Amino acid sequence: MEHFTESITKTDPLRITVLVFDHVVLQDLAGPLEVFSKAHNLTQGQYSTFTVAPTMEQVLTENSGLTLTPDYSFATMPEADYLIIPGASMPVINTLRADADFSAFLSRWLSKAAVKTVSICTAAYLLADIGVMNNKKATTYFFVADDFASHFPLIELVRDVRFVEQQNIISSSGVTSGIDAALYSVGQHSGAPLRNMIARALRYDYQQQHDWPIAEHGMTYHGE
Amino acid sequence: MEHFTESITKTDPLRITVLVFDHVVLQDLAGPLEVFSKAHNLTQGQYSTFTVAPTMEQVLTENSGLTLTPDYSFATMPEADYLIIPGASMPVINTLRADADFSAFLSRWLSKAAVKTVSICTAAYLLADIGVMNNKKATTYFFVADDFASHFPLIELVRDVRFVEQQNIISSSGVTSGIDAALYSVGQHSGAPLRNMIARALRYDYQQQHDWPIAEHGMTYHGE
Repeated sequence: MEHFTESITKTDPLRITVLVFDHVVLQDLAGPLEVFSKAHNLTQGQYSTFTVAPTMEQVLTENSGLTLTPDYSFATMPEADYLIIPGASMPVINTLRADADFSAFLSRWLSKAAVKTVSICTAAYLLADIGVMNNKKATTYFFVADDFASHFPLIELVRDVRFVEQQNIISSSGVTSGIDAALYSVGQHSGAPLRNMIARALRYDYQQQHDWPIAEHGMTYHGE
Repeated sequence: MEHFTESITKTDPLRITVLVFDHVVLQDLAGPLEVFSKAHNLTQGQYSTFTVAPTMEQVLTENSGLTLTPDYSFATMPEADYLIIPGASMPVINTLRADADFSAFLSRWLSKAAVKTVSICTAAYLLADIGVMNNKKATTYFFVADDFASHFPLIELVRDVRFVEQQNIISSSGVTSGIDAALYSVGQHSGAPLRNMIARALRYDYQQQHDWPIAEHGMTYHGE
């Protein structure tokens, strides 16, 4: 019986959902999608990806960079193992935080057992609001880190990293660091050799530690 | 009059077109688009981006990662200053090389004065075929570099770099190195401080030199 279970685990693809919404930051979603797409190629299909959006309407990424048609809506999304939540500018994130349908979707997802959730950049606010990061290590975009820490004192904010994992949540610190978080996940499922092969294929130097810009060279943000 | 010309240069946005086609590698197009999108934000709109595809039909990126609707077709594309050509697997690139409409579009573009063309990854084959890289320095994806060198002996292939510029063509060596090529272009137009600010915003370490994987740790490709 145990052998049978292992066999299912190995042959069923890992199902990765990427959440898309208007004004989403393109690199935040494209980096993880590319990593899992390469994992699909190199494992003969042990990874599958699809996108989900609030509705089936077309989605415009930030600055109308790309016009996307989602694979599924919140209402039609099939079962999945991972949810990747890309970030956006804070006005966009704050609009999502006030959106009851969006929060309800995330709360339903987070109530599932044995699923993993990955926040990229400012998407950490969406998980923090629901309380699932409380008393856990988490990270977010350096630009908003002080604001995040003051709003969510129960979360143990980790700085100078590209991503942090605790229990079933991985938070990444911004934009290209979504690539690192996805590479880490592939390494957990398929081992470091595949993770490193994908990093080489992408011409990307995988890393977890990464000094954040210091304030005078970076930017500042003060939330409402 | 010279003052008037300078004034136009500063106020007209730099128009960046990204070419999209079925099975295009998502990261190849998303990296440069993200860089120019951030440049748009940080310069109050001095950069604009749009996508172009052979027709207005929807485009699926590699492994159906994303479903895109292009902004323009070959027939309707407006004037632009840059054309970014992302890569794909070699079977896809070889299909494009044999596509008369595709080649005609690229030849028309390359015959224009004062435009820049950026190839990402395997897209270098598309420019090499047309002859515009002959007797010039260029680079491509490490995985296909030996094949590229044997097919195009008139091109001076540069290895262990992320991108190379010669005259009006920038070639990049693969996937995330499209980010470096785009950052370089922003630096040329707006200076190193903006380039470095965008790199920090993306949490990305900009670099031009980069050792390629050696064969035994990499992959091999032998073209037809």
